[in-house]
Amino acid sequence: MRRIERWDYIELTFRGHAEGNPFTDYEITASFTGPSGTLHVDGFYDGDGIYKVRFMPENEGMYTYRVTGSFMNGETAAGPDPLEGAFEAAPASADNHGPVRVTEKVHLRYADGTPYYSIGTTAYAWVCQTMELQEQTLDTLAHTCFNKIRFSFLPKHYLYNFNEPITYPFVRGNRRGQDPERLARAMKIDYGGDYARDITDFDCYTPNVEHFRRFDLRIGQLRDLGIEADLIFFYDYDRWGFANMKDECDRLYLKYCVARYAAFRNVWWSMANEYDIMTKTVEEWEGLGELVSARDPYRHMLSIHNCLRFYDYTRPWITHCSMQRIDLYKHVEETDLHLKKYEKPVVWDEIAYEGNIDMGWGNISGQELTRRFWEAFLRGGHAGHGDTFMDPDDVLWWAKGGVLKGESEPRLAFLLRILKDMPCEYLKAGEGIFDETVGIPSTEERHQVYGTTPAPGSSCSFEIHYFGFGRPSFRTMFFPEGERFHVEVIDTWNMTIEDRGIMSGVSRIDLPSREYMAIRLTKVN
Amino acid sequence: MRRIERWDYIELTFRGHAEGNPFTDYEITASFTGPSGTLHVDGFYDGDGIYKVRFMPENEGMYTYRVTGSFMNGETAAGPDPLEGAFEAAPASADNHGPVRVTEKVHLRYADGTPYYSIGTTAYAWVCQTMELQEQTLDTLAHTCFNKIRFSFLPKHYLYNFNEPITYPFVRGNRRGQDPERLARAMKIDYGGDYARDITDFDCYTPNVEHFRRFDLRIGQLRDLGIEADLIFFYDYDRWGFANMKDECDRLYLKYCVARYAAFRNVWWSMANEYDIMTKTVEEWEGLGELVSARDPYRHMLSIHNCLRFYDYTRPWITHCSMQRIDLYKHVEETDLHLKKYEKPVVWDEIAYEGNIDMGWGNISGQELTRRFWEAFLRGGHAGHGDTFMDPDDVLWWAKGGVLKGESEPRLAFLLRILKDMPCEYLKAGEGIFDETVGIPSTEERHQVYGTTPAPGSSCSFEIHYFGFGRPSFRTMFFPEGERFHVEVIDTWNMTIEDRGIMSGVSRIDLPSREYMAIRLTKVN
Repeated sequence: MRRIERWDYIELTFRGHAEGNPFTDYEITASFTGPSGTLHVDGFYDGDGIYKVRFMPENEGMYTYRVTGSFMNGETAAGPDPLEGAFEAAPASADNHGPVRVTEKVHLRYADGTPYYSIGTTAYAWVCQTMELQEQTLDTLAHTCFNKIRFSFLPKHYLYNFNEPITYPFVRGNRRGQDPERLARAMKIDYGGDYARDITDFDCYTPNVEHFRRFDLRIGQLRDLGIEADLIFFYDYDRWGFANMKDECDRLYLKYCVARYAAFRNVWWSMANEYDIMTKTVEEWEGLGELVSARDPYRHMLSIHNCLRFYDYTRPWITHCSMQRIDLYKHVEETDLHLKKYEKPVVWDEIAYEGNIDMGWGNISGQELTRRFWEAFLRGGHAGHGDTFMDPDDVLWWAKGGVLKGESEPRLAFLLRILKDMPCEYLKAGEGIFDETVGIPSTEERHQVYGTTPAPGSSCSFEIHYFGFGRPSFRTMFFPEGERFHVEVIDTWNMTIEDRGIMSGVSRIDLPSREYMAIRLTKVN
Repeated sequence: MRRIERWDYIELTFRGHAEGNPFTDYEITASFTGPSGTLHVDGFYDGDGIYKVRFMPENEGMYTYRVTGSFMNGETAAGPDPLEGAFEAAPASADNHGPVRVTEKVHLRYADGTPYYSIGTTAYAWVCQTMELQEQTLDTLAHTCFNKIRFSFLPKHYLYNFNEPITYPFVRGNRRGQDPERLARAMKIDYGGDYARDITDFDCYTPNVEHFRRFDLRIGQLRDLGIEADLIFFYDYDRWGFANMKDECDRLYLKYCVARYAAFRNVWWSMANEYDIMTKTVEEWEGLGELVSARDPYRHMLSIHNCLRFYDYTRPWITHCSMQRIDLYKHVEETDLHLKKYEKPVVWDEIAYEGNIDMGWGNISGQELTRRFWEAFLRGGHAGHGDTFMDPDDVLWWAKGGVLKGESEPRLAFLLRILKDMPCEYLKAGEGIFDETVGIPSTEERHQVYGTTPAPGSSCSFEIHYFGFGRPSFRTMFFPEGERFHVEVIDTWNMTIEDRGIMSGVSRIDLPSREYMAIRLTKVN
């Protein structure tokens, strides 16, 4: 009997109808019954008369399955796999923690219970570049700390992104499936110059399997590197018409992607990058978001990313807030307010990128980007990185992958280590129970200190006080009567942790008058 | 005939009653009639049976005066000055621009029409320190760019400020004039530790003239250095009871100060530092503010400074917004919003200080403080500086004066030079008419560029684009058809201005990928 790991997937292959348009004319579905009941999943057409079904067991134990659908070409057994069968889901191996899930409303854990601190990055169109560049991107990712990457199935048409993809998501075909009304609206908000849309002749009823097969490969490689694939369905950076397909093509595309990729445990779905500069209405986004939510048997992380206005993240199909800052000066610093408002995890997927391009969203320093990560995480949020340095060959990480030119990544790795080393699982914004500064109670003092919530049942007491752009030469701590704390001074930029021993009572902690310092306090029992 | 400069002051001296409490028992007033009518001013008691009247002529020309009041000790002529007389106000000398006035609702000019860009600093209790230290402070000011300084008549009891003043504003006297109810409220919000209030025995009906005479000296010296004296009447940093006097003592004190100092052209009045952490109610502040406004014949700049909540700056007696940031991350960046809301000049008197003390409000870098100045001024606001570096002798500029330890001052001088060199008088936040960046219209682009309003009747066209913490390696400008511009690249931190010649059409301007850069564009006719 076949045996796979829990949270890996089984793939079943069948021959079937190849005539007409198999993507739309036939269907294939399957039911899988395991230790916790039955799940129904869609299969998908993979070209050349081949249909596939993929399934990810979420439990250990025995599973049986049954495949049905109009795809069958008059044969009893479509083969090579049997239409009914069984397999065993074995315990997950050490590096397989399962998909990321929301826990305690606002936090993230892998399905096996391991906390997940999302240190994301962005390379929107990396899977559309040359195979050589894609391999380089994977090599870069293998040597960095990122555990999520945002990218799209679609090619990208935007600043530093004007090359053609190596393959297209749909086959050529006289603009079949493009929505003239949406296109007309899009042309009206056309941005001129290099942004001119020159819509070409695709048949949006016919996915290009060669294109999507490559995403199988890349999503699987990311999974093996322990990296979540935050897959973007739509964006407006388009000159091919994929941003303005007919609704039925949008739905075909979404169903196809969900059927094909949902069995990868590391998949996250992102309905759009910058939904609010596209031609779809909120009602249309709602319908598409609900479709993905309903079609995905595993309830993967699912959100929609804004440009100018946050989406209503309270919508039931949305698992987390996938946010772009909507203000130049203040954003991650409001993480705790968003957590309270939306009661869902806050993932800052765009907070400006480290780089030196002309655009304000892509030219902050490594120090500033790292500060933004600390501000987000210390309030219980998550954040995403991008690298946008000018390049003689026009290969910017954020667009195409390749190599990193910035300085922030090692600092983000350091932050991730600090997070993983915590005696408590989650951080949240706090008023600093040990830092009752003498003096006028002042708002900024409250904004500069943080606490952790002890895990349920735990008695740990732990705080990280982060000073950001502040440069105190010392801080005075007022430890609770009779309690002792291990004090460490962290330089978040220079990546050092200095042991200051055990303190109690009123204690002065000397600091180096530099930016980006933190104090870590751990109660000693 | 006596002759003084316009906007200087004439001082008249008279002998009168010395018995009882001359500060409350007698009065002295005067009327001055000049080219534009008659003004009534209060005189003040200066101790030892001496009363004085000061008057600042706001016009050139002949003035006559008449002094009356119950101060006269049965004599017809109180002497040594005659009770009636005349003098001439001559043209102001080159460095005398008159008092600062509000113009065009939101801007500031000296009375002679010279634009005033307020580069303030703060040394709250400098006139309460040793004479030697005061002289050092004046020497520092003489070599810096500051054209306003905030300080108080009162001694200060606060962090790094616990020494006794060299003189007190009132004489000793068994707590006469302290308000028990206010004191009780103040003790309730006592902050403990070093902040403990140990109210001592002053007679708040009897100003100490020795104390106030020293302010004559210092305000005059500041005037001669071209520095506005932003005089704070009240704050809560108090262990002597001056923060919680009876209402009649508050009024006595205000009237005394206005009578004594209003004739100095460089006076600004600040009702309070951090009004909202004091025991007075808004109704009480209103009454006191109106008193100062009504008693000051010259209508000097008058405001009230907040801690946690802005005051209602629309109140008629308030000439400008004297603001402290109420958010750690965003404040000066909202200058244009405040200008629109209050329709009064916006002066950011506290936006955190350059330094390295433990408090978040006093440990930002010189770079960050300078950035805040640029952000404020480029939106049409003004800003204030402070220097809070730890000192072995506990002499912090912001508290006691002395010397500066920070790096921002030369950069503020550079900014002031840039402002004074403008072909237009005022800056205001703009969307950057020449910077129609190709691409998605994005909020942050709009926040990073600025324009100037041409002065009335002027056809000048001028912009400064400031990139703050952004580090673009270039920017593309889209100059209007047929127009040519002189382009300069300004490094606001390294204080360099690089000439890039004349440009037109679509022009790329290379930049050094560093923070704190700006582009200056001046139309060439």
